[in-house]
Amino acid sequence: MPKDARSRLTELLENEWGRLGVEGWNAGWIDLPSRLGAKIASLIGADPDEVIVCDSTTVDFFKLVSAALRMSGRKVVVTDDATFPSNGYVLQGCVERSALRVVTSADGISNPESAVIDSLDETVALLTLNHATFKSGWLYGIDILTKAAHERGALVLWDLCHSVGVVPIDLKRAGADLAVGCTYKYLNGGPGAPAFMYVRRDLQERMTSPIQGWFGQANAFSFEMPYAPAPGIRRFMAGTPPILSMAAIEAGLDLTLEAGLTAIRSKSIALTEFAIRLWEDRLAPLGITLNSPRDPEKRGGHVSFGHPDAFAIDRALIEHMRVVPDFRTPDNIRYGFGPLYNTFDDVYEGVERMRRVVAEGTFGGIDPGDRKVT
Amino acid sequence: MPKDARSRLTELLENEWGRLGVEGWNAGWIDLPSRLGAKIASLIGADPDEVIVCDSTTVDFFKLVSAALRMSGRKVVVTDDATFPSNGYVLQGCVERSALRVVTSADGISNPESAVIDSLDETVALLTLNHATFKSGWLYGIDILTKAAHERGALVLWDLCHSVGVVPIDLKRAGADLAVGCTYKYLNGGPGAPAFMYVRRDLQERMTSPIQGWFGQANAFSFEMPYAPAPGIRRFMAGTPPILSMAAIEAGLDLTLEAGLTAIRSKSIALTEFAIRLWEDRLAPLGITLNSPRDPEKRGGHVSFGHPDAFAIDRALIEHMRVVPDFRTPDNIRYGFGPLYNTFDDVYEGVERMRRVVAEGTFGGIDPGDRKVT
Repeated sequence: MPKDARSRLTELLENEWGRLGVEGWNAGWIDLPSRLGAKIASLIGADPDEVIVCDSTTVDFFKLVSAALRMSGRKVVVTDDATFPSNGYVLQGCVERSALRVVTSADGISNPESAVIDSLDETVALLTLNHATFKSGWLYGIDILTKAAHERGALVLWDLCHSVGVVPIDLKRAGADLAVGCTYKYLNGGPGAPAFMYVRRDLQERMTSPIQGWFGQANAFSFEMPYAPAPGIRRFMAGTPPILSMAAIEAGLDLTLEAGLTAIRSKSIALTEFAIRLWEDRLAPLGITLNSPRDPEKRGGHVSFGHPDAFAIDRALIEHMRVVPDFRTPDNIRYGFGPLYNTFDDVYEGVERMRRVVAEGTFGGIDPGDRKVT
Repeated sequence: MPKDARSRLTELLENEWGRLGVEGWNAGWIDLPSRLGAKIASLIGADPDEVIVCDSTTVDFFKLVSAALRMSGRKVVVTDDATFPSNGYVLQGCVERSALRVVTSADGISNPESAVIDSLDETVALLTLNHATFKSGWLYGIDILTKAAHERGALVLWDLCHSVGVVPIDLKRAGADLAVGCTYKYLNGGPGAPAFMYVRRDLQERMTSPIQGWFGQANAFSFEMPYAPAPGIRRFMAGTPPILSMAAIEAGLDLTLEAGLTAIRSKSIALTEFAIRLWEDRLAPLGITLNSPRDPEKRGGHVSFGHPDAFAIDRALIEHMRVVPDFRTPDNIRYGFGPLYNTFDDVYEGVERMRRVVAEGTFGGIDPGDRKVT
């Protein structure tokens, strides 16, 4: 938690909700979605009016997939088998079964980009991928894939959840169409903090949200029927935004902007390179695999290790070693390094403690059925 | 703001987000949607496993309208012209134009229930109404209208935003099918606090959400494809819930449960009756109309007054008289009385200050174009 998140929330409780009540909407709350959106825009190479913060990544992803299909005359959607499951579930819910094309990617262990490009043809409405995949951290090339999709008349929707705030992104250079992302990983926005969505400016007036809510209406407080979409990106909002969770986002965002993505990326690469060097010396000899790309240019901010007993090792690290990685089925242990607060000593301890757990076999007796959120 | 909301948020920041980080999910966050849902269930006559807190009212309303239409073989949806606009916008977005039937209600100035019943026939998939309408506060009869819809084989979706926490509701007695509601009016859940949804138990396994997200998946952390809806009400969740805004809800909810809806409703009726008596003496002679039902049994917790210069009067009250009503187009000034904190003196001052503004004509010079959120 960024220290400033605490003071911002205290201010919000004391002087806004607690003192102004409903008038807080006129004292800044109403502008939070676009104000935070403008700050995120500067991290992803977008213009301030191309990004808005609202709802969850899942809901925003649903809105943009539905809107893209409605705008396009085509039906086919292409994704890969390394996509974050919630995106896959959304696609299974709103794309006809026969029209969903899933590319086998090996999650970036070998380069899947040519397989993705080969899957594109003139029937494809939308290509959607996670910029950094959630298990291996493989970084897809936004420029090359956006270009390939555009050449076949398809739109591209990027999920930036695992890259925003740790990898420099330039959506404008790529001519990217659509994107979503969360604010609670590298941006430190707080538990379940609302997501953001990006729609390239010239597409905004051509697309409409499937969820027509009053915050996306041209004049929300005119209370007029029928629905008329707001001009610009605001039309993709739905209901009233959760202000406490929204306000907390800004502290982490400001820290990221202050540090700058060049410095953050540079430290991130140094952290993950160090982790991989330590893995080579200490973990590989124990049969632990590296499940992330070796090339730092094709790797996001996290590093994954593989072991058949990954679940038990993960729990042992959390319960006995004060290291908190993410277990990802079936055999994946993910270390997410936050360049704003993780040190090289943290990386060393994280790897060395995993070595001790595996070398000493202290992960026995943990039942994989006792699966918690990790 | 309930005082306990501040201590709960401080605890969350210091000891959960700030200390536990991601492990907070295992320390209670993950259960918040159903734990809060169970408390709300006791206010609306539902079982604990029939209510969940997630997303906004607009998004939840979209999910239930879509799910109801998908389950029903029919296409027609009936609502009234007093519905909250966001609901109307959602309906216009996901119901075919020819299949949306809007009953003229006069917003409860005369009883619209027979007109609603007359509009129901064997083509109707869904009837959806605001239990208490947002302008007049007219209270629809949940029992009689649910019965009438069921007799014609239609489902009913109640919007409880303007009644939950101030009017006792018994969904079980009515055999109600579906409901949504917000937590930030009489429940004092905080600005933009997440909404709740109710699905009668026997319908839960027969309906699926149009937004298939990982929090609605049978095992969110198995990361398995394909999507399989979670058993029960949890299948209607989508993405990661905004924990700060969720956690703040509980304080107001606990206060409501402690006071009890019988006492709250009794004080609410006394407050609104007092307001109407004062209107009769002080406002009616100035040409201000009563835009709410006279019969307390058919009136929710707010009272609306009408005047051609309502917007200017509303702004004058806010800017010069420290009274904060809601202006609702075209001519409506709404006083929402919170029985947990508003006194009879507040009611007196609210009416008396409006009398002074109108009698002294001190509302001139306010430009209706300068419309803020109220």
